[in-house]
Amino acid sequence: MNMNTEKKPIYPIQVWDITEKEFKRENNYRNETTFALSNGYIGTRGTFEEAYPFDIDTGLEGNFVNGFYESEQIRYGEANFGSPLLSQSLLNLPNLKEIRVILDGEMFSMEEGVVEQYARILHMKEGFLERKLVWTSPAGHKTKIRISRLVSFARKNIMVIHYQVTPVNYSGKIQFVSKLEADVENHTRKTNPIVDYGPFGRRLFETNIKAEKDLIYYEGTTKGSHLTMACGSVHEIYREIGKVCEKELWKKKQGELSASLFAELEAQQGETVTLDKFICYTTKLDMPKEQLENFVTQELSAARQEGYDSLKKQQKAYMESFWKIADVKIKGNEALQQGIHFNLFHIIQSAGRDGRTGMGAKGLSGEGYEGHYFWDTEMYVLPVLVYTEPETAKHLLDYRYGTLEQARKRARILGHEKGALYPWRTINGEEASTYYPLGTAQYHINADIAYALSLYLQVTGDTEYLKEKGAEILIETARVWADVGSFAECKGGKYCICDVTGPDEYNVLVDNNFYTNLMARENLKDAAEAVDYLEKNAPEYLKKLEEKLDFSTDETELWREIVEKMYFPYDEKRKIYPMDDGFMMRKPWDETKIPPEKRAWLYENYHPLFIMRHRMSKQADAILGMYLHSNLFTEEEIRRNYDFYQEVTLHHSSLSTCIFGIVACDIGYLDTGYEYFSQSARMDLDDYHNNFYAGIHAANMAGTWQAIVNGFAGVRCQNSQLRFKPAIPKEWEEYAFRLRFRGALLEIDISKQEAKFTKLEGNSISFRIGTKEITLNGEGDCYVEKI
Amino acid sequence: MNMNTEKKPIYPIQVWDITEKEFKRENNYRNETTFALSNGYIGTRGTFEEAYPFDIDTGLEGNFVNGFYESEQIRYGEANFGSPLLSQSLLNLPNLKEIRVILDGEMFSMEEGVVEQYARILHMKEGFLERKLVWTSPAGHKTKIRISRLVSFARKNIMVIHYQVTPVNYSGKIQFVSKLEADVENHTRKTNPIVDYGPFGRRLFETNIKAEKDLIYYEGTTKGSHLTMACGSVHEIYREIGKVCEKELWKKKQGELSASLFAELEAQQGETVTLDKFICYTTKLDMPKEQLENFVTQELSAARQEGYDSLKKQQKAYMESFWKIADVKIKGNEALQQGIHFNLFHIIQSAGRDGRTGMGAKGLSGEGYEGHYFWDTEMYVLPVLVYTEPETAKHLLDYRYGTLEQARKRARILGHEKGALYPWRTINGEEASTYYPLGTAQYHINADIAYALSLYLQVTGDTEYLKEKGAEILIETARVWADVGSFAECKGGKYCICDVTGPDEYNVLVDNNFYTNLMARENLKDAAEAVDYLEKNAPEYLKKLEEKLDFSTDETELWREIVEKMYFPYDEKRKIYPMDDGFMMRKPWDETKIPPEKRAWLYENYHPLFIMRHRMSKQADAILGMYLHSNLFTEEEIRRNYDFYQEVTLHHSSLSTCIFGIVACDIGYLDTGYEYFSQSARMDLDDYHNNFYAGIHAANMAGTWQAIVNGFAGVRCQNSQLRFKPAIPKEWEEYAFRLRFRGALLEIDISKQEAKFTKLEGNSISFRIGTKEITLNGEGDCYVEKI
Repeated sequence: MNMNTEKKPIYPIQVWDITEKEFKRENNYRNETTFALSNGYIGTRGTFEEAYPFDIDTGLEGNFVNGFYESEQIRYGEANFGSPLLSQSLLNLPNLKEIRVILDGEMFSMEEGVVEQYARILHMKEGFLERKLVWTSPAGHKTKIRISRLVSFARKNIMVIHYQVTPVNYSGKIQFVSKLEADVENHTRKTNPIVDYGPFGRRLFETNIKAEKDLIYYEGTTKGSHLTMACGSVHEIYREIGKVCEKELWKKKQGELSASLFAELEAQQGETVTLDKFICYTTKLDMPKEQLENFVTQELSAARQEGYDSLKKQQKAYMESFWKIADVKIKGNEALQQGIHFNLFHIIQSAGRDGRTGMGAKGLSGEGYEGHYFWDTEMYVLPVLVYTEPETAKHLLDYRYGTLEQARKRARILGHEKGALYPWRTINGEEASTYYPLGTAQYHINADIAYALSLYLQVTGDTEYLKEKGAEILIETARVWADVGSFAECKGGKYCICDVTGPDEYNVLVDNNFYTNLMARENLKDAAEAVDYLEKNAPEYLKKLEEKLDFSTDETELWREIVEKMYFPYDEKRKIYPMDDGFMMRKPWDETKIPPEKRAWLYENYHPLFIMRHRMSKQADAILGMYLHSNLFTEEEIRRNYDFYQEVTLHHSSLSTCIFGIVACDIGYLDTGYEYFSQSARMDLDDYHNNFYAGIHAANMAGTWQAIVNGFAGVRCQNSQLRFKPAIPKEWEEYAFRLRFRGALLEIDISKQEAKFTKLEGNSISFRIGTKEITLNGEGDCYVEKI
Repeated sequence: MNMNTEKKPIYPIQVWDITEKEFKRENNYRNETTFALSNGYIGTRGTFEEAYPFDIDTGLEGNFVNGFYESEQIRYGEANFGSPLLSQSLLNLPNLKEIRVILDGEMFSMEEGVVEQYARILHMKEGFLERKLVWTSPAGHKTKIRISRLVSFARKNIMVIHYQVTPVNYSGKIQFVSKLEADVENHTRKTNPIVDYGPFGRRLFETNIKAEKDLIYYEGTTKGSHLTMACGSVHEIYREIGKVCEKELWKKKQGELSASLFAELEAQQGETVTLDKFICYTTKLDMPKEQLENFVTQELSAARQEGYDSLKKQQKAYMESFWKIADVKIKGNEALQQGIHFNLFHIIQSAGRDGRTGMGAKGLSGEGYEGHYFWDTEMYVLPVLVYTEPETAKHLLDYRYGTLEQARKRARILGHEKGALYPWRTINGEEASTYYPLGTAQYHINADIAYALSLYLQVTGDTEYLKEKGAEILIETARVWADVGSFAECKGGKYCICDVTGPDEYNVLVDNNFYTNLMARENLKDAAEAVDYLEKNAPEYLKKLEEKLDFSTDETELWREIVEKMYFPYDEKRKIYPMDDGFMMRKPWDETKIPPEKRAWLYENYHPLFIMRHRMSKQADAILGMYLHSNLFTEEEIRRNYDFYQEVTLHHSSLSTCIFGIVACDIGYLDTGYEYFSQSARMDLDDYHNNFYAGIHAANMAGTWQAIVNGFAGVRCQNSQLRFKPAIPKEWEEYAFRLRFRGALLEIDISKQEAKFTKLEGNSISFRIGTKEITLNGEGDCYVEKI
């Protein structure tokens, strides 16, 4: 174990807010991520309206649209057959947040004059970002400035900036300069030095840029992916007494890569002048290119009509309904409570909601990992959404369904005559991993997607989804598992899967990775069951699939045989499941030989061969499998394995500690579970990994929720049965959360003495605690279990 | 088995010559390799003096100097720590072979007019290339042309072209244009499409080019590796009656990238006019940059002084002394005899002889594999040279000794605190492999070098070499073996080596590769014995090494323990050694699923994961180990393994069949051995792999010699003991060869009835046949063994 819970809080402990109390250049890069806003479609980093010219180590202006990527030829020292030839990178788009304010001739800048009463607050409960301060200019003019910003959940293409200026000790001219800056480029290489692929330089061409009246519009097409995006803004300026400023107020300045609007008005001492800047982004992925401009102007016009106050109200309503279900309430530790809120807030911000987009490992908060979607979505985020926002979970599954065709093609490239192999990392559905031992070899992505889908189906009971899309995903993923391995005589005729990489990226291209074999088996089982279900309940859907996929139900015989005969490496002496066939044979790891400053992501300082020949693990691997399918193992078994793996796991991935925490709870190691959980809960908020600047760690953020719900409360849904195993850390007085399950909303409130289960709304609900089966029917019905 | 012996001979069967009887554009690219000349320092492809403008699919002008490389930044989709950052490519240098002849106003070209009595002949016995033809120009002028070319073994920097023109049916003006063309670039990407690294474009800059009197001189420095090379030519023209042409005869034309000299003279019908062009190449690797020009002019002047006839005589003498020892005489099959001569000729041409250079996998015959040195030198070529040209063998070992420092640094990068790890592919001693699973992971290179060194020491008895250089190589390579693995409890405390790639590049990053473990054990044993030897016989050398390497003789204890406890994978049921721990578990290979046109180098059409998950082998791997250390196994054991491996081996490497052939002989499968041998003997001459254009397959060429000597005659040198196990293929009447062994020269003559061993010169010699120990003392002493 390699804990790091001693780090001091960076921000004041406030359960619903994150507050920056002083602007410091050296914190800027990190805080841009902390204060990033998103609605799953638009993402914008927490940069300032003043658009300070920070260098590459101090800041990164970032504006993204989910799914909008640029491609460039990937270069290899030596390419393999099937190496992706085109990169995919979430493209950093033109910035529209820039607003300069000139106060009686002096331009506002926090780096000049005196800043007082400064606060930047992320209002997580309401879903907006606020900055307030009093600025005394070099000439002595004092001005109150208050800026709010939100990315609307109600209107996916809209963000708005509400900029208020109040002269305190003078009356004078106030000038606003609102800008669109299109001279932008990705900085990826800085954040991940081992990646040497594009996009390099500015990538939007064939541009259409204009400023007209109070409108700025920009359209551009990427050089490599040939995708067009459009964005724009409209503006309102008003005094306290109401709107005063006509569109004619604006003067324009237009260049090739930027456009600005200037407005000027006289303000009285004490009078507040407000600029609302409504911003819109959209892309050709949502509509034909010709419609983009029309769409942007109409959306902007509608947003202006709606007005800032109304957008803010909608935002609050959205957040309320989110928190109502997703919030986890903890009595007894405000720091953790804050961490949980922060994590959930970023999760809900990051998830694609249009069925066409997924969720990046870093959400839309930065350029890290090129904005790619990984298994993080399915194994870490989806389980949270399945229980709290199942519609959003479904949209994320839709993204995978929508990219099945690419996955089928990829399977052929990998030599599978049937089935689909999902890409390890992607945006457009095609494989984007350039180093297959840590990329494509992670076949478990297939089973991970199948797992999340299966969990969704079990928790929601959405049989329509199974029929329409789910069964196809299950069948196509299963087919690859049925082809990749073989029944090996030397392993007693068991089914062996060779040359895959499990979640543990320090042990690559191994044989019989325990996690992979386990998850593959469940994938095959779920697929066979899905086929059974269709056969009995929806034969017309089965027929459609048989035709579409050239599928025969005979295939399920092999699947069942594999399920029966799946091989798992086993150490007779220790009675544990080694992570893979060769794990126990590797060189013992001696951490003392590793200088402390190199005890993080080993690939940065060590050759892959050095890493893989040692017996240690980067992150939860076998243990993750045992968490997800705990019903297949005895507690004693899990404990033995846990004891073994916690010794050899370095937790060099942000995806590790939350899982160890859950399993620790499962086997009664509550204190250890709590330690792991704490590590996970404030990991990003306190920047344990010192790389928050590059973007959030979405998986761990979601893992925090799991650590409480699946960990302390022991929630599992296996074989469509919901179970609890409630416990409470000794540090807490009480905690509570809610779950949606098959149309019911259940509240779980756990104190030191008891666990109280209340059905709040919806269908009746059944669940188990230990061997007890409990059913709650009426609204408000509850059951209490003593602890 | 995947034989291909049915191919028709491309060239007429002539035991000492290779003759092209007709010039055809479509054969040109391949024939450029066939007729390539080299002396281990200069290499020049068999292109024409006319410098036809062939496109990239039809020809490649190529002139190389061993060890002279260019570097460029290597680009990776995702680089690893320790990925080589700079490429090394044997640089294609300015061409000096170009000579145009204008015959009474018409420029000679084989693509115009009529060509008769054409022959291009590689005189392997004498070591030169000749072209002769009668050309009738479009205007009807008939001219006899005869051109000889040689790259001198006597003068490493010199090649010479002897160009003779005889007007047959006219008298008229003969004009010679002799050119240096520096507008050259490498074509690598064409010959190996998966390699995407430099050098791209022209790479020599800061040039100094001039034509003065009858001298052309060129000097240029590479852009990336910052190495300077120089070359030049001087010219003599004479009639049959003796020299007539003064230097003043020449007119010059000089450009930025080329320089030409023009000469013109009147020739009488029937009179032969001759141009001798002496060409010199050298580089900064041999002398300070300032001395280059002086050196070139002096060498040229000396060569001119020597004259063509004398150079040719020296060449013939060199070749005679080579063939005297190295030739293998076969009665009964001229095609095979020709193949053997062709193979040996290219081998002797290719080997670096200055102790500073090695030998490329393609010699100096083309750009294939970037001109890199691999294990091919040590495992295939050196065993031939050790017995025939031990001095040349020593020079090649010197190259490895000279790059120990780079190998030490590489070992540190791979995480070894002590020892040296040789690069998988290199020119300058640094690792140049860009894909570590098929590159750096081939740790066996260390043991291969140690093996060749040990064989050299055993066969020559050169204890001076052991003391001066050999022991250091053995110790440093052994140290890496002692660090890379560990004694694994789960394998009964045996020493296991994980995550290496053996010679079989279809099974990568495996655990306990049989070949690697076997060779590593021998490396450790040889190192321990070398330390013992020094301790007893040369303690002052040991002391020097202890200081230089921070070495203690205590280290040998661990080495001996590893030797004792080395782990080898074993299949109890089949009683064979699987290639590695996971081999038997892999999916069975079904060749019928592979379209015939894709049944070659699988990486071209299949993803690495597809390849590695199947149970098949690219080339001799375990079987190679059993050949090299046959004394460690019973014949029965070798037979069982051979039977197993010959079923699963695809021979997709040119390094495979010769080894299988040897082992087949060893276990009495003489007919099969003969088939394999035949495959190997004419592989390049008949272009079995359809890629001879890219360069020779040096390893297989040397393997042919081994297939006879180590195969049919059963020669081994193990524990310093020479043994024979003579046999003769039923297709042959008789064959004979010679070996040098510890100062003796032994002739072995094997007929259907008997094997006759004659000591020709030198020390007395002892060897074994079966359990018999034979000693021959006097010159001409012989021993006859009935077969």
